[in-house]
Amino acid sequence: MTSTEQPLDGIAAQVAAVFAAGMDHVPFGQWLGLEISSIEDDRVTMRFEMRDEFVGNSEINVLHGGIISAALDTVGGLAALLGVLSRAAERSEDPPSPWLSTIDMRTDYLRPGSGREFAAAAFPLRVGRRSVVTRMELHNESGDLIAVGTGTYSVP
Amino acid sequence: MTSTEQPLDGIAAQVAAVFAAGMDHVPFGQWLGLEISSIEDDRVTMRFEMRDEFVGNSEINVLHGGIISAALDTVGGLAALLGVLSRAAERSEDPPSPWLSTIDMRTDYLRPGSGREFAAAAFPLRVGRRSVVTRMELHNESGDLIAVGTGTYSVP
Amino acid sequence: MTSTEQPLDGIAAQVAAVFAAGMDHVPFGQWLGLEISSIEDDRVTMRFEMRDEFVGNSEINVLHGGIISAALDTVGGLAALLGVLSRAAERSEDPPSPWLSTIDMRTDYLRPGSGREFAAAAFPLRVGRRSVVTRMELHNESGDLIAVGTGTYSVP
Amino acid sequence: MTSTEQPLDGIAAQVAAVFAAGMDHVPFGQWLGLEISSIEDDRVTMRFEMRDEFVGNSEINVLHGGIISAALDTVGGLAALLGVLSRAAERSEDPPSPWLSTIDMRTDYLRPGSGREFAAAAFPLRVGRRSVVTRMELHNESGDLIAVGTGTYSVP
Repeated sequence: MTSTEQPLDGIAAQVAAVFAAGMDHVPFGQWLGLEISSIEDDRVTMRFEMRDEFVGNSEINVLHGGIISAALDTVGGLAALLGVLSRAAERSEDPPSPWLSTIDMRTDYLRPGSGREFAAAAFPLRVGRRSVVTRMELHNESGDLIAVGTGTYSVP
Repeated sequence: MTSTEQPLDGIAAQVAAVFAAGMDHVPFGQWLGLEISSIEDDRVTMRFEMRDEFVGNSEINVLHGGIISAALDTVGGLAALLGVLSRAAERSEDPPSPWLSTIDMRTDYLRPGSGREFAAAAFPLRVGRRSVVTRMELHNESGDLIAVGTGTYSVP
Repeated sequence: MTSTEQPLDGIAAQVAAVFAAGMDHVPFGQWLGLEISSIEDDRVTMRFEMRDEFVGNSEINVLHGGIISAALDTVGGLAALLGVLSRAAERSEDPPSPWLSTIDMRTDYLRPGSGREFAAAAFPLRVGRRSVVTRMELHNESGDLIAVGTGTYSVP
Repeated sequence: MTSTEQPLDGIAAQVAAVFAAGMDHVPFGQWLGLEISSIEDDRVTMRFEMRDEFVGNSEINVLHGGIISAALDTVGGLAALLGVLSRAAERSEDPPSPWLSTIDMRTDYLRPGSGREFAAAAFPLRVGRRSVVTRMELHNESGDLIAVGTGTYSVP
């Protein structure tokens, strides 16, 4: 399911492996079909292409808000996992279970979601023992910023 | 697409008609398949059933967060439309174009989305000339409150 | 600092005592001067009066948004504490330290904050082991809904 | 009230003038005492110093969350005004009335608000005809990121 553009090392590889294995249990995630593009430093980027079923307004052919939120939530969750695994490694602690869940999330829909291909990126703003806050953003292939989000995730 | 449980009058019927006609242009909305259950006073309720593709964790068979957000956003948009049409009627003004768009939205995921059938309900908190704020909530058939949301919608 | 209108029992009394003792260490809270009006079931209500320094627009004499947010955050924190203490009591667990901190909060400013006296009320939507989500609302003495909020609080 | 570190030109000077004149009608804003540090490109930065009444926990001497939210809301409103005036200038349109009001705002409290001096900065994410979305952040003098926010403002 994940096809990273370049080999990932260490914690980045763990995040990708958790995502790949986890997708087996996430039918809606499979339907969405997001792929990891890169995991660098504290930033995760995923990609997906426009599909007919993703459209929210077929007269102007733009992404539905629900697809945008789902993409931001997905990449935010991976950035939260990356943050949690990095924190555990820095402190030489055992990593927690990788099943972070979204506590709450805000999405700001900035521009119509036009495009053929989209990049959803995220990074953690704060990694705590109990919760992680992440920032997310969605661009199209022209670099237009379509939406941003902020999410709070629960550490198991 | 919409199958209301009882005949709707006046503004409620307009909202249902806008939704029914609009769905022709919303492929992702068709895929979701939400139906209007009732429009009473200032409250819109929609329903949908669990489907395999909606699942976010197949080990415990719960809704994906993206489906929850999409359902809340949809019913919030209809409640915003209801508010805008009611406001125009009260003031004897021409109704604006029915194409409200979501400016921003917060979702709080309160409990795992278990259930066979779900009710998404919404009502406007404030109906302004330029924007409408709505509250949304999602229950399952046992009455468990699964998620709540708050959305701000732009009036065209 | 707190002057409840009626005697509080059990957990409600504990919440009031924590608030009263805690205020000694919260200079901005003292400056705001919110008082607990009632703690019933899972709902906390606080009150405060308009003061010159609270005004955000002296031409129309309304509360500043910062005062509104601070009031909602305060009452939300007490509702979160109430939820946490109630949960511990139901489970016969030791209560956690009462120092909940706000992780994130959304405020929706619905109407101008006109009035002489204001009631800020809150209740928990979900009480978890690590975080609590609360809903808050602010009314004036005429019953106008001025603002609502949703907050996520961290359990120590 | 505003003491900018360097002379401001054009639209930046207009924003500073609106703020200076507006403060006469904002008692709580005067009490807070935020000053504009710089307005460059699309970014507004304000500063304020720790004061005894701003403290939310006197045992660790940190800012109260209400002060943090009020500072973010203030600088977000100025960034929204900057965005609105810039948009009008680009389109050779008459600028709207400068009285933007906050529709909704999310604050994420990331770290304890320790410090002697704070910088609140903001920039618009989207400038529309009816609403503006801004991002805000608060740093202390050591460069620690204390809080971030996202706000939606109404254009009159």
